[in-house]
Amino acid sequence: MKQHPALAPYAAVHPYGLGDLLHEQARSRPAMPAVIDGDHTFTFAEFHERVNRLAGVLRAKGVKRGDRVLWLGQNSFRVIEALLASARVGAIFCPANWRWSVEEIAFALDDFDPTVVFWQEAEVGTNMRAARAGWSSPNGNWICHDGCPGEDEYEALMATADPAADFDPVETSTPLLAVYTAGFSGRPGAALLSHESLIIMAWQGMMAQAIDEESAYLVSGPMFHVGVMMGTLGTFLAGGRNVFVARVDPVELLESIQANRITHAFIAPPTIAQMRAANADGRYDVSSLFADPQMSDYRIPLVMPAQAPSMKRMGGYGQTEIGGLSSVLWMGGTGAGRSIPFIQFMIADDAGVEVAPGETGEIMARGPLVMCGYWNRPEENARRVVNGWHRTNDLGRRAPDGSLVFVGPKTTMIKTGIENVYPAEVENCLRTHEGVADVCVIGVPDPTWDQNIKAIIVRKPEAAHPPESFIAHCRERMASYKKPKIVEFADTLPRTAAGFVDRAAVDAAYGGGGYPKVG
Amino acid sequence: MKQHPALAPYAAVHPYGLGDLLHEQARSRPAMPAVIDGDHTFTFAEFHERVNRLAGVLRAKGVKRGDRVLWLGQNSFRVIEALLASARVGAIFCPANWRWSVEEIAFALDDFDPTVVFWQEAEVGTNMRAARAGWSSPNGNWICHDGCPGEDEYEALMATADPAADFDPVETSTPLLAVYTAGFSGRPGAALLSHESLIIMAWQGMMAQAIDEESAYLVSGPMFHVGVMMGTLGTFLAGGRNVFVARVDPVELLESIQANRITHAFIAPPTIAQMRAANADGRYDVSSLFADPQMSDYRIPLVMPAQAPSMKRMGGYGQTEIGGLSSVLWMGGTGAGRSIPFIQFMIADDAGVEVAPGETGEIMARGPLVMCGYWNRPEENARRVVNGWHRTNDLGRRAPDGSLVFVGPKTTMIKTGIENVYPAEVENCLRTHEGVADVCVIGVPDPTWDQNIKAIIVRKPEAAHPPESFIAHCRERMASYKKPKIVEFADTLPRTAAGFVDRAAVDAAYGGGGYPKVG
Repeated sequence: MKQHPALAPYAAVHPYGLGDLLHEQARSRPAMPAVIDGDHTFTFAEFHERVNRLAGVLRAKGVKRGDRVLWLGQNSFRVIEALLASARVGAIFCPANWRWSVEEIAFALDDFDPTVVFWQEAEVGTNMRAARAGWSSPNGNWICHDGCPGEDEYEALMATADPAADFDPVETSTPLLAVYTAGFSGRPGAALLSHESLIIMAWQGMMAQAIDEESAYLVSGPMFHVGVMMGTLGTFLAGGRNVFVARVDPVELLESIQANRITHAFIAPPTIAQMRAANADGRYDVSSLFADPQMSDYRIPLVMPAQAPSMKRMGGYGQTEIGGLSSVLWMGGTGAGRSIPFIQFMIADDAGVEVAPGETGEIMARGPLVMCGYWNRPEENARRVVNGWHRTNDLGRRAPDGSLVFVGPKTTMIKTGIENVYPAEVENCLRTHEGVADVCVIGVPDPTWDQNIKAIIVRKPEAAHPPESFIAHCRERMASYKKPKIVEFADTLPRTAAGFVDRAAVDAAYGGGGYPKVG
Repeated sequence: MKQHPALAPYAAVHPYGLGDLLHEQARSRPAMPAVIDGDHTFTFAEFHERVNRLAGVLRAKGVKRGDRVLWLGQNSFRVIEALLASARVGAIFCPANWRWSVEEIAFALDDFDPTVVFWQEAEVGTNMRAARAGWSSPNGNWICHDGCPGEDEYEALMATADPAADFDPVETSTPLLAVYTAGFSGRPGAALLSHESLIIMAWQGMMAQAIDEESAYLVSGPMFHVGVMMGTLGTFLAGGRNVFVARVDPVELLESIQANRITHAFIAPPTIAQMRAANADGRYDVSSLFADPQMSDYRIPLVMPAQAPSMKRMGGYGQTEIGGLSSVLWMGGTGAGRSIPFIQFMIADDAGVEVAPGETGEIMARGPLVMCGYWNRPEENARRVVNGWHRTNDLGRRAPDGSLVFVGPKTTMIKTGIENVYPAEVENCLRTHEGVADVCVIGVPDPTWDQNIKAIIVRKPEAAHPPESFIAHCRERMASYKKPKIVEFADTLPRTAAGFVDRAAVDAAYGGGGYPKVG
């Protein structure tokens, strides 16, 4: 909409980026600690000055609006420093997975085409150098942050930069954070989240996890993961302190919790078990952790948010592309709950037309919380937007109370005759059968129908239902073409390290194949 | 910034207006009550359908993007209905003060130039008709909502409209709500708040007041007040129910609290006192009110948010033009606390240059929470934006911990020699003198200096300090030209009904005058 001319002067007032948020924190809580990392502690005023210096370094290296900056290293306060410096100059910042292989780094260099690459010698140097040798971009600048003779060095560049440099305001809708996600077109793509999306995400994280200016967040999870970024930025927004550790080591985490009076953390359950073992004698004081008092006899309590009584009801639905968790139980309802501000959802068919309430379809999302698209993927971006909605590639439905229900990923699709069938939908139906303990639905090649639907079922210990019972169960509850034609029983299903059913392994063991291409 | 072409498809995904929020509520909580008003109760799905109908009515009456819609009536669920219908079509909606005189209505008609005026016969009809008679706009449409034979009637128009009409998405930054505020240029101006600003405001209201989908908000305050709108929209955002009363009657409020299990309300202290008197025998059950248990012996507790233990620390700084309360104590600090997301503050001199920490200057604000400007005030808008910041016309400073401190309004300025002195700043200094109980600083005409500074001081009962003591107190603490030259003692100071010192009355009684023109 064209703005009314009388309102023109106010257009200059509205730009607000993550760099502005830092400026406000430096003014409104200058002496409070912002980041802690080993021997480094910087207040918001000091951090603001460092970010200004680094933004000046980026500018001097030729980084302009929309240019890319890549971080090849482990967790560090400098990841947030580089993110905020990128925010100041309007660049796009990507924290890479430091475990990437040479091939993966080489792919990201070509795909993301960064103007500046921040890197570290430890853990990453060898692979980085091999990938860098094959990269021929003329405008790549390399800045090392853990001391590398003969290379541009982070702190040396910072020392010569202007702490009071001035930068033009950045529009709130400008892309800022790039996160590589699993590829739907066969290769990973970098989802771009705007300043606005990140601030909304931070606000929801701060609210859901009851983070305030007294909080201390242990940044122990991977910073290329949107869930960790939500906690880190939520703490930054609240004026709390972020405490960084480069790697996940149970004893180092315990030491940091005690030393820094950590209140919030993002730690995976297997690590929690290791921490409990390491603290069996209670040698580390972890009482600062904001966790369920009922868990205190474990010494190291379960710090997963679901256990903290003052936090909101956790759980929901999200994906990196929609700014992380954005349908949440703390907004009410069942299943995956209801949407947070600045996003809306619709369940639609393949043409982007809303389905009837209760029917399963693809979850569509729109609003400023949704990503700006994938970097360098014009075709995928065009395919993923329909009628002004972002296609999540996930299946869902509305519960009778309107809550969003996540059904499963849409990407594995079975083609039988002219019909598309999503295994997740058939599996969800079979799980309502009293005899089912676990289930995986696959497609097996068929000369006439392209594929037939086959269900691999783990029956409950006492269950002895014949195959027909499961087929009939589905026929009564779904369109007939969705029912399994073949049922096979198994004692267990193969699973991935993350605990999900390993579909590729099930396919290999039970004759799956002949899937149509998606996307 | 020009968007990268690969990201072009996603531009369609980000528009998100208040109408989209209603659409999401209708999908995600269709059967929950949204509004209650006397015998009317509408669920979110029903309310969504009504808003769609009313948006169709506005469209049929010729309302286009950026056109204005005026509400001339008391509180009603239809105020929110008309606000949301305006949101759907991209119009600007103004809830007027229903106590306006004929002259004030006539002024607003000319100034706001509405395409549609909603009005009511009760209380407003007589003044409205007198003002309407003198208004010659060719495109004014009048819609009555409480039954007026021979006129366009609200529910009759609704009945014939399409409940499933479709509307193009509205950009988040589009102006939506117009609120007339006191004029700095001698006449009131309508501050325009965007969809984005209103959603941020609603989110902060919901968070600060602990509103959720179980909450019931009593809309008893004036809906042309941004504080009431914050509670109403916060409840709408949370999925709670808004309960409307047309006027403030202590017994009607008590009846509504009991009947609707009201949890939150906005009631002025004098009304609370009347309600306590009316409920002295406890005949009304007001236990649903979300208030401090310590107050329960009052039967009707103090429902002001400061009293509710689960709410956040209340208090802060705000003005209509910056989206209401936007520096808040629940973000930490002292004084007026610290800023909420999407706004930042700066203390600056008249040229818009930041002053040193701790010095008093004008509070400047920027970010998407700030208004889009005043409607139809190009000169005032140009004057109020400096270096990309909105001038609040209020004085403030940063406390040592960085918190924002509100000093006072800037509009009353004393000119002495070439210097500008703000009475509020001198008064704040005098209040730190041990002998001062109350104080008002004025300017008295002087042939040489334009004005001299005069302090009218109410001394504490036991205090007998001479005038020189107060002058010396200021000389030690401020630039010498700011100290009062004359001190006069008084037993009390005249005050307005709202409890503020009545500066005009002080001027009249103590010889004030000769003030420079501001703005």
